[in-house]
Amino acid sequence: MSTSKIEFKDSTYLDNAFPASERVYIPGELHRSVRVPLREVLTRDGARVRVYDTRGPWGDPDELCDVRQGLRPLRLEWIVDRGDTAEYEGRAVRPEDNGYLSFSHAAHAAQSQGRVHLESFPGLKRPPRKAAHGAAVTQLAYARRGIITPEMEFIAIRENLGREQDYPASRDDRSDIRFQHAGESFGAAIPKYITPEFVRNEVARGRAIIPANINHPESEPMIIGRNFLVKINSNIGNSAISSSIEDEVEKMRWSITWGADTVMDLSTGRNIHETREWILRNSPVPIGTVPIYQALEKAGGRPEELTWEMYRDTLIEQAEQGVDYFTIHAGVLLRYIPWTVKRRTGIVSRGGSILAKWCLAHHQENFLYTHFEEICEIMRAYDISFSLGDGLRPGSIADANDDAQLGELATLGELTKIAWKHDCQVMIEGPGHVPMHLIKENMDLQLKLTHEAPFYTLGPLTTDIAPGYDHITSAIGAAMIGWYGTAMLCYVTPKEHLGLPTQKDVKDGVIAYKIAAHAADLAKGHPGAQERDNALSKARFEFRWEDQFNLSLDPTTAKDFHDETLPQDGAKLAHFCSMCGPQFCSMKITEEVKEAMDQKSVEFLKAGAEIYIPES
Amino acid sequence: MSTSKIEFKDSTYLDNAFPASERVYIPGELHRSVRVPLREVLTRDGARVRVYDTRGPWGDPDELCDVRQGLRPLRLEWIVDRGDTAEYEGRAVRPEDNGYLSFSHAAHAAQSQGRVHLESFPGLKRPPRKAAHGAAVTQLAYARRGIITPEMEFIAIRENLGREQDYPASRDDRSDIRFQHAGESFGAAIPKYITPEFVRNEVARGRAIIPANINHPESEPMIIGRNFLVKINSNIGNSAISSSIEDEVEKMRWSITWGADTVMDLSTGRNIHETREWILRNSPVPIGTVPIYQALEKAGGRPEELTWEMYRDTLIEQAEQGVDYFTIHAGVLLRYIPWTVKRRTGIVSRGGSILAKWCLAHHQENFLYTHFEEICEIMRAYDISFSLGDGLRPGSIADANDDAQLGELATLGELTKIAWKHDCQVMIEGPGHVPMHLIKENMDLQLKLTHEAPFYTLGPLTTDIAPGYDHITSAIGAAMIGWYGTAMLCYVTPKEHLGLPTQKDVKDGVIAYKIAAHAADLAKGHPGAQERDNALSKARFEFRWEDQFNLSLDPTTAKDFHDETLPQDGAKLAHFCSMCGPQFCSMKITEEVKEAMDQKSVEFLKAGAEIYIPES
Repeated sequence: MSTSKIEFKDSTYLDNAFPASERVYIPGELHRSVRVPLREVLTRDGARVRVYDTRGPWGDPDELCDVRQGLRPLRLEWIVDRGDTAEYEGRAVRPEDNGYLSFSHAAHAAQSQGRVHLESFPGLKRPPRKAAHGAAVTQLAYARRGIITPEMEFIAIRENLGREQDYPASRDDRSDIRFQHAGESFGAAIPKYITPEFVRNEVARGRAIIPANINHPESEPMIIGRNFLVKINSNIGNSAISSSIEDEVEKMRWSITWGADTVMDLSTGRNIHETREWILRNSPVPIGTVPIYQALEKAGGRPEELTWEMYRDTLIEQAEQGVDYFTIHAGVLLRYIPWTVKRRTGIVSRGGSILAKWCLAHHQENFLYTHFEEICEIMRAYDISFSLGDGLRPGSIADANDDAQLGELATLGELTKIAWKHDCQVMIEGPGHVPMHLIKENMDLQLKLTHEAPFYTLGPLTTDIAPGYDHITSAIGAAMIGWYGTAMLCYVTPKEHLGLPTQKDVKDGVIAYKIAAHAADLAKGHPGAQERDNALSKARFEFRWEDQFNLSLDPTTAKDFHDETLPQDGAKLAHFCSMCGPQFCSMKITEEVKEAMDQKSVEFLKAGAEIYIPES
Repeated sequence: MSTSKIEFKDSTYLDNAFPASERVYIPGELHRSVRVPLREVLTRDGARVRVYDTRGPWGDPDELCDVRQGLRPLRLEWIVDRGDTAEYEGRAVRPEDNGYLSFSHAAHAAQSQGRVHLESFPGLKRPPRKAAHGAAVTQLAYARRGIITPEMEFIAIRENLGREQDYPASRDDRSDIRFQHAGESFGAAIPKYITPEFVRNEVARGRAIIPANINHPESEPMIIGRNFLVKINSNIGNSAISSSIEDEVEKMRWSITWGADTVMDLSTGRNIHETREWILRNSPVPIGTVPIYQALEKAGGRPEELTWEMYRDTLIEQAEQGVDYFTIHAGVLLRYIPWTVKRRTGIVSRGGSILAKWCLAHHQENFLYTHFEEICEIMRAYDISFSLGDGLRPGSIADANDDAQLGELATLGELTKIAWKHDCQVMIEGPGHVPMHLIKENMDLQLKLTHEAPFYTLGPLTTDIAPGYDHITSAIGAAMIGWYGTAMLCYVTPKEHLGLPTQKDVKDGVIAYKIAAHAADLAKGHPGAQERDNALSKARFEFRWEDQFNLSLDPTTAKDFHDETLPQDGAKLAHFCSMCGPQFCSMKITEEVKEAMDQKSVEFLKAGAEIYIPES
């Protein structure tokens, strides 16, 4: 097969997202090979504010990253050193993996479209690796055995943002930059300081997962759990209608630049296998997929022709590539399907609808449910985490928290126990569209019915009436459910319900969700979370405009907005902005008030510091 | 003084915001002259979905509106008919009202800037009107006397969106388009159907206000109260740095096109008086101001030179023009000021900082507090509502719910009782920056300390770290506090903290706040609120793309987003979109599932409808 080279666009614009920032590394103590990357924002008052950095090697100017070579395999040494896995000759790539009948069909299709999207990933191909002798090679298995892996220590340092001491939780000392509100965590167990042992214990209890396929050694360890920082996921992926490999790799890098903690590749068109390979080899964050999408392509797009063998083959294919978590809709049971008929919007999950159709066509129970233990065997051999899919999530406000949704949730709870029995890591997917007053009920039922496994929700959208703005309708619900205990928030872009997101949409979605996740961290009282707010507000109050921009989630946009009305360099030092002009600035007047108070204080002391001054 | 004509831009784009919509009017029963405008969205399944319409005559294609003439005085007849007011020769406009030392100074300034912003409003000048014989001419006074004014009946019809029957609150009948979740209103008293008597009673109890200066007869009645639809306010206004009269009139019209229920004119530069006149004469929604801004201009920008007389003169000036509510920072007491010094961001309210400086400079109590009863006399003579300002609101997450903020809130509660004694209508302003877990505490304290007067909050912003996206950080807090009981949400635009909003920013802010307000209505279980969600979701599920767009808050954006990937006309009829392509559409598959279920049902009936079929 002759292929053409993919031409990646110039991506230096990604390197300029964060001015006045430096990459720093914090070394591990238990594991000498652990080096945790953070981004330090340098401010003009000399503070260095550390923030979580999801960019991996792409965010380090000293690393020479080449999208055609992929990232260095950070975790490979740790995986090999554990001595419980072995390389083997993997499954050969077949034409149907990319949606073609044959290799010549694939070549012909590429030619006739005049496009260059069939180049196989040209970097080093490592043979796949899996557990030796049927061992469980999951972080859960190690945690249960009391082992603190390098991944766990990496995460502890990362979650603490490198700080080494507790934060005061008092509401009194407001002058301290480290002041933080106590928060309300609704029974979560967030410690003042995250230790490696705490990470191990949370993973062992199933309350947190570390998605880390042994065939994705390029990934940097991260954790999804209620007692850690709230994470966000961004979805990318081509469809039959549009988009290409280079676009998707670019969207992945774009997502992690703005802070996506994991990325799901939801491709459904052609070239699924190759797209995924390019993404995985270049991704420092865990990659999730919905394997039924690719399996359906193999079944010619006809749900009723899906078989367990096709699905199993797809799991192996993706496991060997290194996918870190799989959405598996094993809770869509035959008996729940009639409950969806009276809904306003039926089944809106793609996976859910595919399986519902299969169940009805065959009048049999969902084959993901009946083969669940076999799926567990595969997951534990590669350490792929379950993301138990909510195939019956509500697609409208009217359908929120109905019988179908809650019935499926209970089934996901049963499946969680089975997966745990096999040492598999599990998180639970959640809705969808939910009015605000039903969000807490949803969270509480999830904790109860699925035994505190981490919750991973899409939004939820709090109203249906704003297509074009669903990053906002859903950021509201996401912030709330994150506060109530959801561990990871799946972003929604402004294009939701309307079309495939562009690069701008991806950024808008990621930023909206970084806001939601951070608002949740603040409300939960996550230790240290408020430090960035404090530093930014201090900069704002002291008219350090550049610092205000640089400490924000999107420095360039903040600066551009400021410069629209006051572009002069001098304005960055001015003690006012265009909103009120120089005479009306409340913060300028407040400075004067403070001076006056200080002056009064001096007079008071000069006068002898007596409360009652004798009449002269 | 020679003036040049203001050239207004072509504004037909405002008329095209809502395709497939018609203006309808619902007549009153108690008052024959009441005609309540609504917008009806016509859908392809024959439904006509009624939505609240804030555009006034500007939204009626049969009305010939001319910005140079102003709107027709809808309420003038009602006001005159009450027979308790009289026209009088008002205060003459002075050069300092527009920020000039003299009329010749003003003319010279206009000339030297080469700008044309000094043209006085050319439409009919009505003499101002005020209460005769010291009567209270407020809606509160009428309500207390048991009078249902035309304003009250107008509001009852408007709040019901013209529907005439109750809505079922059951969660069972999901097939009904009128299905609605019961909601959780935290002790609010929302009836199933809003009657004119209910409106009267809520106003009489002080739980709701109808901002309606008798000198702004162009305004359409609307209500702000916890037991009514949640309202939103948009801020406009020029500053010393930029913007002009025509821009501000355009921003007002732009705001009400997207759904702003009231508009505050926060102008601080020159030409404040004339800008306001143009806005008032063209505004069908209540206009609010912060009179201290203009008073400060009259004091040459020096807070310490402000006097009660200057301020009083400004109140009269604006009262005669027709401003519907005044933000008055009468709760910034001398004793609270030291509490702000230890804050991270001191005093961030402009009004608050001006008064704090005045108090310290004179070492006297805030003159708005000491003259509060005189202010009440003015307010009741024109029916201007108090918006008791939160001059000490927190400007950062760190400062939320602190002593200064809550001390001032208690004082606002005292002032509320005084205002009520004078038959004045009152709402209470709230913060600001508040982490999610402290929002409910804020709402609960407001209800308790200010005796259930309506709450009117700015956001609140739930994190400080996203300048450039503060419409989102604050829409999260706004939706929540709206749910908890706030009656009106003051919008925040993406430019907050950075600069003056452009037209795009104003729209982004208004839409984000329409989302927040509607999400709150849904969560409170406001009767009928869910009907639009239901209709839109039904359209979405039935692939009626145009209906989905037209029922949304911003049809053009929804359509443009869809068309970015599938611009063909045929795609508007397609049973899929570009997100998943034709093979993967969950809703298409769900249609098939439903058909299969129906088929099963037919087979079942054919087979005799026996649960157990005898073996053959």
